Amino acid sequence: MRSCSAMQLTELSETHRPTLDQALDAIRTRAYWSPHPEHPKAYTGDGKAAFDALLGHRLELGQPGTDDWTGGEVSPYGIELGVTYPHPDPDVLLPAMSAATGAWRDAGPETRALVCLEILARISARTPEFAHAVMHTSGQAFMMAFQAGGPHAQDRGLEAVAYAYAEQARTPAVADWSKPQGKREPQQLRKTFTAAGRGIALLIGCNTFPTWNGYPGLFASLATGNPVLVKPHPRAVLPLALTVQVAREVLAETGFDPNLVALAAERPGEGIAKSLAVRPEIRIIDYTGSTAFGDWLEANARQAQVYTEKAGVNTVVVDSTDDYRGMLSNLAFSLSLYSGQMCTTPQNLLIPAAGITTEDGPRSYDEVVADLAAAVAGLLGDDARANALLGALVNPDVKARLDAAAELGEVALPSREIAHPEFPAAVVRTPAIVKLDGARKHWDTADAEAAYLSECFGPVSFAVAVDSTRSALDLLRRTVREKGAMTVGAYTTSPDVERAIEEVCIEECAQLSLNLTGGVYVNQTAAFSDFHGSGGNPAANAALCDGAFVANRFRVLEVRRQA
Amino acid sequence: MRSCSAMQLTELSETHRPTLDQALDAIRTRAYWSPHPEHPKAYTGDGKAAFDALLGHRLELGQPGTDDWTGGEVSPYGIELGVTYPHPDPDVLLPAMSAATGAWRDAGPETRALVCLEILARISARTPEFAHAVMHTSGQAFMMAFQAGGPHAQDRGLEAVAYAYAEQARTPAVADWSKPQGKREPQQLRKTFTAAGRGIALLIGCNTFPTWNGYPGLFASLATGNPVLVKPHPRAVLPLALTVQVAREVLAETGFDPNLVALAAERPGEGIAKSLAVRPEIRIIDYTGSTAFGDWLEANARQAQVYTEKAGVNTVVVDSTDDYRGMLSNLAFSLSLYSGQMCTTPQNLLIPAAGITTEDGPRSYDEVVADLAAAVAGLLGDDARANALLGALVNPDVKARLDAAAELGEVALPSREIAHPEFPAAVVRTPAIVKLDGARKHWDTADAEAAYLSECFGPVSFAVAVDSTRSALDLLRRTVREKGAMTVGAYTTSPDVERAIEEVCIEECAQLSLNLTGGVYVNQTAAFSDFHGSGGNPAANAALCDGAFVANRFRVLEVRRQA
Repeated sequence: MRSCSAMQLTELSETHRPTLDQALDAIRTRAYWSPHPEHPKAYTGDGKAAFDALLGHRLELGQPGTDDWTGGEVSPYGIELGVTYPHPDPDVLLPAMSAATGAWRDAGPETRALVCLEILARISARTPEFAHAVMHTSGQAFMMAFQAGGPHAQDRGLEAVAYAYAEQARTPAVADWSKPQGKREPQQLRKTFTAAGRGIALLIGCNTFPTWNGYPGLFASLATGNPVLVKPHPRAVLPLALTVQVAREVLAETGFDPNLVALAAERPGEGIAKSLAVRPEIRIIDYTGSTAFGDWLEANARQAQVYTEKAGVNTVVVDSTDDYRGMLSNLAFSLSLYSGQMCTTPQNLLIPAAGITTEDGPRSYDEVVADLAAAVAGLLGDDARANALLGALVNPDVKARLDAAAELGEVALPSREIAHPEFPAAVVRTPAIVKLDGARKHWDTADAEAAYLSECFGPVSFAVAVDSTRSALDLLRRTVREKGAMTVGAYTTSPDVERAIEEVCIEECAQLSLNLTGGVYVNQTAAFSDFHGSGGNPAANAALCDGAFVANRFRVLEVRRQA
Repeated sequence: MRSCSAMQLTELSETHRPTLDQALDAIRTRAYWSPHPEHPKAYTGDGKAAFDALLGHRLELGQPGTDDWTGGEVSPYGIELGVTYPHPDPDVLLPAMSAATGAWRDAGPETRALVCLEILARISARTPEFAHAVMHTSGQAFMMAFQAGGPHAQDRGLEAVAYAYAEQARTPAVADWSKPQGKREPQQLRKTFTAAGRGIALLIGCNTFPTWNGYPGLFASLATGNPVLVKPHPRAVLPLALTVQVAREVLAETGFDPNLVALAAERPGEGIAKSLAVRPEIRIIDYTGSTAFGDWLEANARQAQVYTEKAGVNTVVVDSTDDYRGMLSNLAFSLSLYSGQMCTTPQNLLIPAAGITTEDGPRSYDEVVADLAAAVAGLLGDDARANALLGALVNPDVKARLDAAAELGEVALPSREIAHPEFPAAVVRTPAIVKLDGARKHWDTADAEAAYLSECFGPVSFAVAVDSTRSALDLLRRTVREKGAMTVGAYTTSPDVERAIEEVCIEECAQLSLNLTGGVYVNQTAAFSDFHGSGGNPAANAALCDGAFVANRFRVLEVRRQA
């Protein structure tokens, strides 16, 4: 196989090295930066037409070891995608992937990074097409699918490439070592250092954010020298299959073996992730999904480095504010976005039963809840706007949980069904707010199974009345420690309370957003600046993205020679 | 508790920041560097007198939760140390350690690094005393105990501090983030980032290199904000107990809680490591020792990040050389040093049955083995020199294995017992070389339990006759893959063979030393330049020291606020 030619490398470097350098700078300063525009107008091409052209066809990837074609995605908006994908015979595909490793390792960290940036650039150019693919698998509304599934996901992929490159570049390729020996000749050695991947990486994708949650692991593994087998969620194959297609195309064009990236689509109910995860060739696993399967992977895929993002219970502590309207509208948006189907959506709003203070005086617990309900109702009062914010429920389980939540307590805001003019089959529901009693005497003792101590994934939030802000912090601590959290939010005007909340979050390893009242929401993180998760509480064993996320995906092998 | 005062910090910074900067530079260039002199003349103080003053006394550490005093170390040189150490009640000691965490975390990465460097500087000043403590617990000869247990161990500790600091300093403490919003006001956030340790770290020490193998984990954990509980090997408590003593002294003097570092000595046969390892407070474990217990820790201490160095089988491939004498004397030294009781000592010497080529023409397998035997016998012919190189056997198991090895094949070099004039009770034995048949037909099939496929820890090496260098590489690959290896050595004048050996080592994740014929030996690695182990084969799941060794000992917690 020919490797990346010098000319190609020069071209890749001219095109992408400045971007890589900017990314390296951004992860160091953590100032705002992104090379991927958020606005659809920045992109050319008819994404809808490109997406439509895929429907009803095989997605050819040219993979070895394809023993069947499978597919069956039905959009949460009602469309049957009808796309079929290669089903792998792992006994053929995995050896082919392993065989691709050597030249990829020998290419070195910089070339690997540049090839990854070329893959991301081509994905970026097809953002409008990916937007439709993400929308019709996740149920996200179009603009969110465009941004979160396009530029934001690409940012997270690029961030992982930057971390991977920086980590590998910490050790030089060659070092001359000369140890003085007094009057004798110094001891001299020439040392070479090679970053080598651990083996095949398995990416197990999720339904709700196939690209955003998939790209960090995919690009971290690929950039550190590992082939990547992509096992998408069976209801969200298309965005990752297109990703694999682009990656294989770029790898082949740059002289590498396209089998460095391959797709593993599964038959209905096959559960292929479980058998792939414990194969000896699989040395790295990235997973986003249920706690049950994440825990299973951590316990059983012992031959692999396992990075998991699982369920958590996110809390917002409401103590006091000097911008009550800003708080309400910020929270209303956070609860509504993608119908609360984000791993970062606040679930438990802890509000003192005695009420809170605001710039306009005190507000009782009931008033705060009613005002928040009104803010949500106002935000989603217009059906077109509601549809643009909410998207569709991703699967029937979410609707079932939403319907059951009304039984858990007094419903402060009932969920409303909204018709989608373009996609009548879509199930679109506004978030419900349910009042619960979080008095300490209860949660401290018998009600470990209290509703607010389990993840209720979807458009349901609990307005939990707590004895005091102190009780809220105790409950926050217990929730993060036992259930995990991807996000914590808090509103307070008291420096003491602020310090106390910070302390809980730092001690329990949760990421905190304080007093957000503008256009940044607790459930959104920005690549290159914000960490997604902490890797230190039960919701996830890794953060996106830091050194720990990339450093153990490769090993450095040293050869030392008498000089 | 008072924290490190500004004045103290300035002093610490003036004293140690230049050293930290040099260490940071060294791990980047991997050129030779060390701030710790190797020669005893560089140190002052009567180490022997200081060591003697410890014998027969309690080592007071002022730890809370001490429910007993225990000890019973007997030097491999025959001295009963008679030192007793605090035995912990973990239910008292662990909470006290956890309580020390907050101020240590708040001090930040630089202050933590500077305090660690002060601890290392005080240990360095007491190197002569530590040398005796290491000698009389490990059985190392004095000069080796001095160097490996002193400056080299301190180098590895400092290296871990440098990696820990660099890893934490990748993220700034504060970042201002401003995202343009077209014609509207930009979104602005102020973000703070705090590196926080995971919890209490447990260091499980080993008998042979209590400081060298202990310092990397100890200092990596401490520098990343974790309290460290030191559980030494019951036969090698003193060097780590002195380390704990120094650490507690420095922590207290710099205004921190001394309980950030504590000792857990155990009663004979208590096996305290097993119960400590699974306690929920323990979030990090560093372990050096048997594969059986290392595997147990990895499988059972699931609440912790577990770093293990276990057993391996080290190979030297002998294909050809242009410096036959240099090769023989280099190998003879490697086999003899500390009676082969190093995790890095070559065990299997793979030599083609048809012989090898040298600058003086071919040498048959029998001649090579005989010449190597003669080289070892010559090196150790003088008893005084032999005692200075060999040290004492660390425990009776080593002697038993050595005696049994003579039954495994034809003995090319019998082990010789050497009297120690100063310490008549010491068991000093020269290495044995045993000839084995490694023909492919055997090891490929039924003899998975062949002698050379198990670690035979101690002064036993196998001269394995292989069909060809190709067969040697196949056996090397199988050995590393199945049994692990801390080191691989090779001698060849053929560029093709060299490339093939490199390929095997890189693919199987083993560190390779090529054609060493001078004063650097395959079993010695230099901090700041050489990696000890790769973390990618069964001998160890981590390398000393790289980013992966430190990056997951802490998490970064972000607080973002509306700006």
